[in-house]
Amino acid sequence: MDARKASASLTIMTEIVLPNDTNVFGNLMGGRLMYWMDIAAALASQKHCNAPVVTASVDNISFENPIKLGNAVHIEAKVTRAFNTSMEIHMKVWGEDMTQQFRYKSNEAYYTFVALDPNRKPRPVPAVIAENEEEKKLFEGALRRRQLRLILGGKMKPDDALELKAFFMKD
Amino acid sequence: MDARKASASLTIMTEIVLPNDTNVFGNLMGGRLMYWMDIAAALASQKHCNAPVVTASVDNISFENPIKLGNAVHIEAKVTRAFNTSMEIHMKVWGEDMTQQFRYKSNEAYYTFVALDPNRKPRPVPAVIAENEEEKKLFEGALRRRQLRLILGGKMKPDDALELKAFFMKD
Amino acid sequence: MDARKASASLTIMTEIVLPNDTNVFGNLMGGRLMYWMDIAAALASQKHCNAPVVTASVDNISFENPIKLGNAVHIEAKVTRAFNTSMEIHMKVWGEDMTQQFRYKSNEAYYTFVALDPNRKPRPVPAVIAENEEEKKLFEGALRRRQLRLILGGKMKPDDALELKAFFMKD
Amino acid sequence: MDARKASASLTIMTEIVLPNDTNVFGNLMGGRLMYWMDIAAALASQKHCNAPVVTASVDNISFENPIKLGNAVHIEAKVTRAFNTSMEIHMKVWGEDMTQQFRYKSNEAYYTFVALDPNRKPRPVPAVIAENEEEKKLFEGALRRRQLRLILGGKMKPDDALELKAFFMKD
Amino acid sequence: MDARKASASLTIMTEIVLPNDTNVFGNLMGGRLMYWMDIAAALASQKHCNAPVVTASVDNISFENPIKLGNAVHIEAKVTRAFNTSMEIHMKVWGEDMTQQFRYKSNEAYYTFVALDPNRKPRPVPAVIAENEEEKKLFEGALRRRQLRLILGGKMKPDDALELKAFFMKD
Amino acid sequence: MDARKASASLTIMTEIVLPNDTNVFGNLMGGRLMYWMDIAAALASQKHCNAPVVTASVDNISFENPIKLGNAVHIEAKVTRAFNTSMEIHMKVWGEDMTQQFRYKSNEAYYTFVALDPNRKPRPVPAVIAENEEEKKLFEGALRRRQLRLILGGKMKPDDALELKAFFMKD
Repeated sequence: MDARKASASLTIMTEIVLPNDTNVFGNLMGGRLMYWMDIAAALASQKHCNAPVVTASVDNISFENPIKLGNAVHIEAKVTRAFNTSMEIHMKVWGEDMTQQFRYKSNEAYYTFVALDPNRKPRPVPAVIAENEEEKKLFEGALRRRQLRLILGGKMKPDDALELKAFFMKD
Repeated sequence: MDARKASASLTIMTEIVLPNDTNVFGNLMGGRLMYWMDIAAALASQKHCNAPVVTASVDNISFENPIKLGNAVHIEAKVTRAFNTSMEIHMKVWGEDMTQQFRYKSNEAYYTFVALDPNRKPRPVPAVIAENEEEKKLFEGALRRRQLRLILGGKMKPDDALELKAFFMKD
Repeated sequence: MDARKASASLTIMTEIVLPNDTNVFGNLMGGRLMYWMDIAAALASQKHCNAPVVTASVDNISFENPIKLGNAVHIEAKVTRAFNTSMEIHMKVWGEDMTQQFRYKSNEAYYTFVALDPNRKPRPVPAVIAENEEEKKLFEGALRRRQLRLILGGKMKPDDALELKAFFMKD
Repeated sequence: MDARKASASLTIMTEIVLPNDTNVFGNLMGGRLMYWMDIAAALASQKHCNAPVVTASVDNISFENPIKLGNAVHIEAKVTRAFNTSMEIHMKVWGEDMTQQFRYKSNEAYYTFVALDPNRKPRPVPAVIAENEEEKKLFEGALRRRQLRLILGGKMKPDDALELKAFFMKD
Repeated sequence: MDARKASASLTIMTEIVLPNDTNVFGNLMGGRLMYWMDIAAALASQKHCNAPVVTASVDNISFENPIKLGNAVHIEAKVTRAFNTSMEIHMKVWGEDMTQQFRYKSNEAYYTFVALDPNRKPRPVPAVIAENEEEKKLFEGALRRRQLRLILGGKMKPDDALELKAFFMKD
Repeated sequence: MDARKASASLTIMTEIVLPNDTNVFGNLMGGRLMYWMDIAAALASQKHCNAPVVTASVDNISFENPIKLGNAVHIEAKVTRAFNTSMEIHMKVWGEDMTQQFRYKSNEAYYTFVALDPNRKPRPVPAVIAENEEEKKLFEGALRRRQLRLILGGKMKPDDALELKAFFMKD
């Protein structure tokens, strides 16, 4: 299985915020945004591995600038790194008020997807080739984020998370 | 009002075909696709004119390759030309079977949107600057398509549609 | 296969405009209307041919009077003519403000559907019998509209579109 | 306020059963049908009284023939009788398998709507003129059904329900 | 087949009223509520009988306090009694304005569901054990409500509805 | 502002997995589940603070047992601890196959919501009183999870996260 470029998985999704997507303040509900991000990440990871995928986990997401009713939501999803049968997908989200020509960052997130074979068992996925600066940084950080996921999921002891420890110590 | 580049209005939308979007053959319903195209075109035209817009007309669309359940739908929308208060938007639609790494053209379409002021009256929009070959071809053809729209809408006599006539004669 | 009356395919659909169907002006989005028309036309053509159908094309539609939030949308769909395996469906759309007792025309459109056999191949459909004046006029115009569709779809040369030419010359 | 003909309120609604409307047997869920009937009845009653309305009550409904995925649902709604500020609406529902040319009765129902003024207080509605046999029968039965509603809602004593009593005795 | 406690079927459902669920007064549409109640009742009855179920009938429902946009809707569903292959489910519905700490009763209803075997034929369901006062009262009333359903459905003569008659006479 | 019991905020939500909620394996999409959880958490936090709320962040979620088409989804949401203007909500999610009488844990999650005043500025919320063992454990862990959120959001240095450090060291 040949490694594939991160950039080959780039998926761009654009949605418009309709009334049913909003809370009482007329802003996009966080849950609706996570739903769209899930679809964008599923598409990016399928592009990478050419197999059906399912959501394995979602990393900590914080919601910063609310996106308003009638505004556009842009999601850019790209695979950062693969781990045997799973892939981490990085997403950037922007809101855009078209009539004001104003584009604002909403948030960033990491979702992890697993590729499945026809018997619904995890199957290997191609490695990821990071080319530019941003992709390389995301590729490197992926190991640390994965250790955090495993610790939080109770599948790794904090002591074994070398990458993560180094990160916590460095500041 | 300064003219703006066609490329500045480019809007990319990606959707996934879910069960409720399909007909009895498990393929995307034409009506659902036209709904998504309407949103993509609205976004592209708002980007161009920085004002709220409404759908004025849709040109003849033919549906070629059906897009299947679970496949991705990609829509690329770009403004081709402006006529005082209206803008023509060109869209290309692809289906993509991610697990087969197969991307197929579904169809193309032209939607026309009108910009409105706060009193809901049509308001002027910036002219379009066509840069590359494709944009120039779309810009030129826009006049002919507009004449056809006006004739079909009963607002122009066939005799006055000089551009259109030339086109019909040239073959 | 016996010819069937146009009137036998008449399908009447009524919807109410809910918040999620509206644009920022509180009016029905063009794309949502095209979605409902697609379903109405599918039902009318299935009634005519007693077989599953798929959308083949949509003719130029122009949107005139916007339909408001809370108003009713009425769609009347009827088959106008059949061409071997395809059927043209004519639709009239009205908005209705029930509390004002005011009914206004929104637009008209022609959709074309193709009947499919169990292998998803086009299958013959019954001819259409036009009875009243309006049905006869729609039946006759169907040939001209079909030539325009074929030309616009790159499947017929303008020179061969005799009906269409006659129409363009007559004004 | 002039009385208005029952027939003037006739509203015809047609929907298609999509995947999300079905239960595990692939048949239309009862709750989805009641939702559509609510909209059809709201439209018929608004036509009658030219005012906004709200659902006041729904009579006993029994679901007989299930309507299948991909089939059409036809709802015919008509006001039967008015009682000061409320209107009873009668609905007939059919399923239709278009490819089999088979139309089957699904069920019948009575919904009651109340007209509201701008302060959300009940406001008087026009009386109903029943013309043909069916309308007259529905008009007469409306009194009996209303008594049953009032008894079931704890607003009338069974002893005072003369119409209803007569009906219960007659068999 | 062992009898099962009514309390074992308790199902609690909570929804939030979103814009598309509302009428022009900004209140929850009756039809949307009946749709949610259908799902709550289906879940409660499946819990009781461990088999797929379909809606058989809905008893008279009256809508009292409207539930507002943004408020929560609480539905509590519990099986009251079983009759061979059918189950009656009782539901209580409350609205809740969370920001005012105000909870108000909206309505009550009885739905009847039938359990089906894999051939879609009705299949026997366990009897219901009513334990507390409320469950016992609901259990007893179920017979009377069933007679009313059968009479209204034309399946029983009023003369044979002994329970119902006794009820009508008692006041 | 008086402290309020954690248990007073308990919100129970039940949904059924419909076709449009599923991926190609016929299982609930992760994104749809996160959407429902967002609504459940919003309701629980509003119950606690009696004010409108918005999603501030979502902690790492991992998806374990897939929930199948037609199964029920149960979400139990409860506030664990308050921090001035924000509240952490803990959720447990189960799937339930009613016909098999089988209930399985799907996942757990922590969402954080912020209460807003009418000017959309964060406003203070009541403290949380943890009563039973589970509530106390959740209350204590909340501090550690908050430090992790702040570090991941770039708002705290790892060195200052004393609670979190202690946790990482203890294994």
